[in-house]
Amino acid sequence: MKWLVGETTEILAALNEDAELTQEDNQHVEEQVRQIIKQVIENGDQALKEYSKRFDQVELEDLLVSEEAINLGYQRVEDEVIEALEAAKENIISYHKKQKQYDFMDTEKRGVLRGQLVLPLARIGVYVPGGTASYPSSVLMNVLPAKIAGVKEIIMVTPPSSNSIPDVILAAAKIAGVDKIFQIGGAHSIAALAYGTQTVPKVDKIVGPGNIYVATAKKQVFGVVGIDMIAGPSEIGILADQTANPTYIAADLLSQAEHDTLARAILVTDSTKLAEQVEKEIYRQLDTLPRKKIAEVAIKNHGLIIIASTVEAMFTIMNEIAPEHLEVQLADPISYLHEIKNAGSIFLGEYASEPVGDYFSGTNHVLPTSGTAKFYSPLGVYDFVKYSQVTYYTKEALAQAKDAIALLARKEGLEAHARAIECRFD
Amino acid sequence: MKWLVGETTEILAALNEDAELTQEDNQHVEEQVRQIIKQVIENGDQALKEYSKRFDQVELEDLLVSEEAINLGYQRVEDEVIEALEAAKENIISYHKKQKQYDFMDTEKRGVLRGQLVLPLARIGVYVPGGTASYPSSVLMNVLPAKIAGVKEIIMVTPPSSNSIPDVILAAAKIAGVDKIFQIGGAHSIAALAYGTQTVPKVDKIVGPGNIYVATAKKQVFGVVGIDMIAGPSEIGILADQTANPTYIAADLLSQAEHDTLARAILVTDSTKLAEQVEKEIYRQLDTLPRKKIAEVAIKNHGLIIIASTVEAMFTIMNEIAPEHLEVQLADPISYLHEIKNAGSIFLGEYASEPVGDYFSGTNHVLPTSGTAKFYSPLGVYDFVKYSQVTYYTKEALAQAKDAIALLARKEGLEAHARAIECRFD
Repeated sequence: MKWLVGETTEILAALNEDAELTQEDNQHVEEQVRQIIKQVIENGDQALKEYSKRFDQVELEDLLVSEEAINLGYQRVEDEVIEALEAAKENIISYHKKQKQYDFMDTEKRGVLRGQLVLPLARIGVYVPGGTASYPSSVLMNVLPAKIAGVKEIIMVTPPSSNSIPDVILAAAKIAGVDKIFQIGGAHSIAALAYGTQTVPKVDKIVGPGNIYVATAKKQVFGVVGIDMIAGPSEIGILADQTANPTYIAADLLSQAEHDTLARAILVTDSTKLAEQVEKEIYRQLDTLPRKKIAEVAIKNHGLIIIASTVEAMFTIMNEIAPEHLEVQLADPISYLHEIKNAGSIFLGEYASEPVGDYFSGTNHVLPTSGTAKFYSPLGVYDFVKYSQVTYYTKEALAQAKDAIALLARKEGLEAHARAIECRFD
Repeated sequence: MKWLVGETTEILAALNEDAELTQEDNQHVEEQVRQIIKQVIENGDQALKEYSKRFDQVELEDLLVSEEAINLGYQRVEDEVIEALEAAKENIISYHKKQKQYDFMDTEKRGVLRGQLVLPLARIGVYVPGGTASYPSSVLMNVLPAKIAGVKEIIMVTPPSSNSIPDVILAAAKIAGVDKIFQIGGAHSIAALAYGTQTVPKVDKIVGPGNIYVATAKKQVFGVVGIDMIAGPSEIGILADQTANPTYIAADLLSQAEHDTLARAILVTDSTKLAEQVEKEIYRQLDTLPRKKIAEVAIKNHGLIIIASTVEAMFTIMNEIAPEHLEVQLADPISYLHEIKNAGSIFLGEYASEPVGDYFSGTNHVLPTSGTAKFYSPLGVYDFVKYSQVTYYTKEALAQAKDAIALLARKEGLEAHARAIECRFD
């Protein structure tokens, strides 16, 4: 693991240097993805089948997964897994319901109504990654907030593996209430959702994390449809003092590291002793992990221990990192909540281990990565609505406003704007 | 003007064809913008000065506008314009304050706290277009919601014209509470805000509409920083029946058309007679407009009259268009409010002329264009905050959840996740 020790300004400068190195050139992928999108626009379903053959080694007859196949998949999943998914669903719903927003109407001035409507998106697309593991939890996390928002139709896409989608993914889709599943993945599935094909309907917004091809495709179709965010590798930041338990910290850091060789695991502490214990413990626990190879590379390349001089410095540094997941393992975590400026999901105390949020607590696990918690939010109900403004003026109210509007319009050189108001009084 | 008359399905199909034609190839601009961003990353201020010379024909000594220059500009603006801007500011604040959101905390289960913090972005960049007119109203619309959200530092960029920024723009910036103004525009100013230079600080999010270069640059830096939306040409959709006043409708359509030769002005009505009157009236009013040349091209190329068979069909069609501005000039507009699914800003009745929203009512005028009201919202306070989730579990609460978490983690092949929970009970 890399260690950074020193003054806060030096540590921040070192972190910035690291960040700049990660703004790597991505132009080759961008060009590939551009071609894929073009092909899907031009050749629709045919292009999707060809890419499935090329990238997923699967010859698809039907892109749409039949209801029968979904039900069969559901039935094959062990009862206790279904129960765990149902329990997680209940918690996700109870948390996300609190995010629901309502219309407002404002009547401050005589003859003037102003308001805001909260309207659901009509149809959304959810990307569920395949790859080295299958993620039923991601299905719940992406679909349920859309349901709560009132989205009418939810389309899921997920890459096929050896000609079928894992049963547990089908089960999660059924539990969450997905309307249609297409067994396609990668950049071509994003193109299909953005532009529509003969069988895949065009959606209004695409959500869900994916690999670099999926992320690049989402960025390229952004504007044609809405997208949630550009997801990068997973990361965890842990703030800990000498009262923290090194075994727990090491385990939590490794739970991120096993995701991906690019995953980042960062400990910020004011205790060199704790840091040494954590590092030792990481290597001890790593040894028996089934995904040791992945986690080891992640820890080696992206594991980071930062020794700060004060608790305040720890927060300054962590706010600059803006981690996707932040654990606060300090003696009195509530005392420091007001210091947190940037973090996707915050876990307080030694029993709020990060996987509780991945699977169970009901907060969302689709989170801003790579420092984007400075401006992005966790996926939520707010991602599946949009607002419309409403304005009503009486003639008398417009008469009051007329001169100011005409003056400002003419100041901007927009005479027709001024006349549109004035003609009502001719 | 183009007329579409027929069955709803035929009209929708014709609209879709038009939409596809507008997805034109933009690759040349994209490549130019990519180069500009690269230059700004590599050469910082020097690149900004070179681009200002090349694109704005201005040799800049200082990029930053001095406080003295801002104050002098403010003082040169006529008193009544300052008063109108102050009145608009008051209305913008009173509307946008209602958008403010608050933290929540949830204590449904014993030993579990879950919550959501609403945190302001730290620093934002506002693009204020120059070009054929100067827009002090845009300054207020972009800056004031950020102020209400609690953003600490607001950086404005705007292209210089003949070596200075218009006084009224400086005045609006001062009234709105901008912290720093840089006299740069175009794609290079977006690059500066996204990556930072020697004098321009890196921001967390960039907002504000601009031309195709600005829009493309925003799309390219999206992910490095947040952006509000990809703005296209302005548009208005008007729903009207035979009770509506053709003079007002024509004036309102022209107020959009004068913005830009690409602006779209669309009337959807069930009255052929009204449509004919509106068309005649447009050409009559057009004749005396100072921006006749622009408005005429817009009306000719992008003016559209749609005759629908029923009021319900009018709404179906307009929801598919998803206009930036929507006027409802029906006999009883409130009765139909529930039919509106997609529109940036809705104006009800014959006195809520669209320019009232551009300049005065206090609703925002930075709105989703080109049909993106299906998934984007008006600019608002919500654009300048992000959420952080908070989770706290006691040992007892985690013990209750332990088995479900471990089961789901192992089902996903993520053993380290399961162990992170279980090690707390060893």
